[in-house]
Amino acid sequence: MTQPLEPDLSLAAGLFDSLSRATRQGRGIVRDSYGAGEQAAHDIVRAAGTAIGLETAIDAIGNLNLTIAGRDRTARRVIIGSHLDSVPQGGNFDGAAGVVAGLSALSGLRSASFTPPWDVTVMAIRGEESAWFDVPYIGSAGALGLQDPACLQVRRSDSGETLESAMQRNGFDPEAIRTRRRLLNPAQVRAFLELHIEQGPTLVETGLPAAVVTGVRGCKRYRTARCFGRYAHSGAVSRPYRHDAVAATVSLLHYLEEVWAREEQAGADLVLTTGELYTNPAVHGPSKIAGETTFVIDIRSLSEVTMNEVAQKANDAAARLGVKYRVRFELGSASDSPAAMMDPRLRARLKPLLQQPFEMASGAGHDAAVFAKAGIPAAMIFVRNDGGSHNADEAMNLDDFAVGTRALMGLLLDFPL
Amino acid sequence: MTQPLEPDLSLAAGLFDSLSRATRQGRGIVRDSYGAGEQAAHDIVRAAGTAIGLETAIDAIGNLNLTIAGRDRTARRVIIGSHLDSVPQGGNFDGAAGVVAGLSALSGLRSASFTPPWDVTVMAIRGEESAWFDVPYIGSAGALGLQDPACLQVRRSDSGETLESAMQRNGFDPEAIRTRRRLLNPAQVRAFLELHIEQGPTLVETGLPAAVVTGVRGCKRYRTARCFGRYAHSGAVSRPYRHDAVAATVSLLHYLEEVWAREEQAGADLVLTTGELYTNPAVHGPSKIAGETTFVIDIRSLSEVTMNEVAQKANDAAARLGVKYRVRFELGSASDSPAAMMDPRLRARLKPLLQQPFEMASGAGHDAAVFAKAGIPAAMIFVRNDGGSHNADEAMNLDDFAVGTRALMGLLLDFPL
Repeated sequence: MTQPLEPDLSLAAGLFDSLSRATRQGRGIVRDSYGAGEQAAHDIVRAAGTAIGLETAIDAIGNLNLTIAGRDRTARRVIIGSHLDSVPQGGNFDGAAGVVAGLSALSGLRSASFTPPWDVTVMAIRGEESAWFDVPYIGSAGALGLQDPACLQVRRSDSGETLESAMQRNGFDPEAIRTRRRLLNPAQVRAFLELHIEQGPTLVETGLPAAVVTGVRGCKRYRTARCFGRYAHSGAVSRPYRHDAVAATVSLLHYLEEVWAREEQAGADLVLTTGELYTNPAVHGPSKIAGETTFVIDIRSLSEVTMNEVAQKANDAAARLGVKYRVRFELGSASDSPAAMMDPRLRARLKPLLQQPFEMASGAGHDAAVFAKAGIPAAMIFVRNDGGSHNADEAMNLDDFAVGTRALMGLLLDFPL
Repeated sequence: MTQPLEPDLSLAAGLFDSLSRATRQGRGIVRDSYGAGEQAAHDIVRAAGTAIGLETAIDAIGNLNLTIAGRDRTARRVIIGSHLDSVPQGGNFDGAAGVVAGLSALSGLRSASFTPPWDVTVMAIRGEESAWFDVPYIGSAGALGLQDPACLQVRRSDSGETLESAMQRNGFDPEAIRTRRRLLNPAQVRAFLELHIEQGPTLVETGLPAAVVTGVRGCKRYRTARCFGRYAHSGAVSRPYRHDAVAATVSLLHYLEEVWAREEQAGADLVLTTGELYTNPAVHGPSKIAGETTFVIDIRSLSEVTMNEVAQKANDAAARLGVKYRVRFELGSASDSPAAMMDPRLRARLKPLLQQPFEMASGAGHDAAVFAKAGIPAAMIFVRNDGGSHNADEAMNLDDFAVGTRALMGLLLDFPL
């Protein structure tokens, strides 16, 4: 096809408006996972799917599937999806944009009376955010039978209700998670496609409307690294006799910034962050040498090799600088969330479908990474978004959304898998 | 005299023991400024002074003066002194050692029936520590008419009683401070001599019993320096688009450590400390780029020029790194406590009187600095002390104390001023 079908942008605009009106509380959006806000969004999306003639199915844990029948109904289907929940006082687009993109694309196919070769399902996924229950990807990992059943006892951060109770109260079946039941067979899924707002500033800064995602970065994190020195009077102890935890920590973090710069120059994908860093407020003082620091080292990359290298360098430097500064570092053990690469064939086909072809890594996690880790070819489109995500100031332009959604439609019409 | 008179070490041992028994609460010493603990110490010292026949005088703000009459009673006198108060749960020697050294020296003179050419007074000074009332040097600065009268309204950190009320309740006269009345005329003081435990580890580390103090370091301190960046997702923002307050602060502090190393190599006296450093616990997070840091820059030196140079470099670097890291530093204005040099003639005479001549700077403030700033020639002896000060673990050996006290006595017998 040379003339791509058009996504239904008036449907999209109406849905964004309805979602905002139904779930805005004060400045921000509140779509609580397995709560009233998320349910309101599911109701709106379900009604829209029904209105354009899609088949409706809700799985045991509440994921909503809206399907356009393909020519071969037994063939592996394509899923376009994202989540409908938000963080507390979140924005209108994080998650919802991917579901609305799917509906907008299927409505476009319907209008042109186009029947795809296989079923295409828009999946509105439950509970992606871990802000309500401290469990990410409840819906996607749950559907694939990959969710740890222990999550059912996790309590909601505000009300204290368990996830199990919240699921039951909404009419869903926690047994599916308890028994790790597969609600979706990876062998029957051709691909998972997700459009999502970019949560960083790259597209805004580079002036591009959308990007193809190369992969979702893994994360190796020293959550509670510490340095132990010795408290002493700031004026009375000369340098050779100090055990200065701040000086040692500054030296370690400065070294890691140099490591980052060298990795970048060598072309590696890497971000390195210390977002928490503090001396002990119960003991520190303006005229004391600090005897203790606590800090985070958050290492993210598309490459496991790069993350391991940086972690090793951090440990080596901690040992070396511990001796130099007469302190003791305890980095602790690192949490390890592996990277998830997007499918190279889907990426290659998607890229020229953007107005201005551009690829970038995703630093935040997404449902697409869960599908990719389950062996399902996955692809993601990022749409430019000002103001970051997880806050009321998310700002996605409908024109940019259209660029991303057109690329998804173009892919459906010329699918490489 | 070739054979120095001996200090009365049994008196010293008895006094340290009495002070400890009277003012120890649990593990530590509690001699609260203008409170019961300080008064108990004054009572013990006064009784000891009377027992060895010293003249007793208490000034309007409670400083105790114990005097041995000299041959010329109209000549300028020498004062040997230090403070008797302690921090809460402090040690037995910080302050008291200087008063006991004076008594031990005068008792030694008395035993040898030696009459000095001029009066020598042991001064037990009130309220040197700012732990009780947030005002340092109440007694010494007050006696010299240099204390800000506003200090009278400062409330005690535990009970909330004002300094004015505490002074009145103990029978002293806050009017002396309110009217900045001079209780001690600098023109009538030949010199002020203070023996004090070293509060750092230099003498322990170098294996020396005592040192002559070159001067008391000044302090220029940015008490609440801040860096403002922008909070963002740690994975989703690549380096060129970050406004990372931690990365910028680490870079600034690392630069200042390099400045310190260069100043040291050039022979400058300097210590540089960041004893408080923290991201904002209400907002920071393990997967967030930090949008804010708060920290201290504590610059100490014997040289005003060095302190000003380092402060200027800190400000220049904050401006430069603010641009580089796309953040804004606000160092604020620096508090400024000038250095106080000890008298070079007294230093030169004292040094050979030590077993192993050694000089060093004092990083902490002392009453001697107040006298020096009032134009009175001052000298200090540091005595080796393990365990730091301002805690129950202060550990001064009586042999080391004797080395320092002998030097003071030797100075009295061959005074250069």
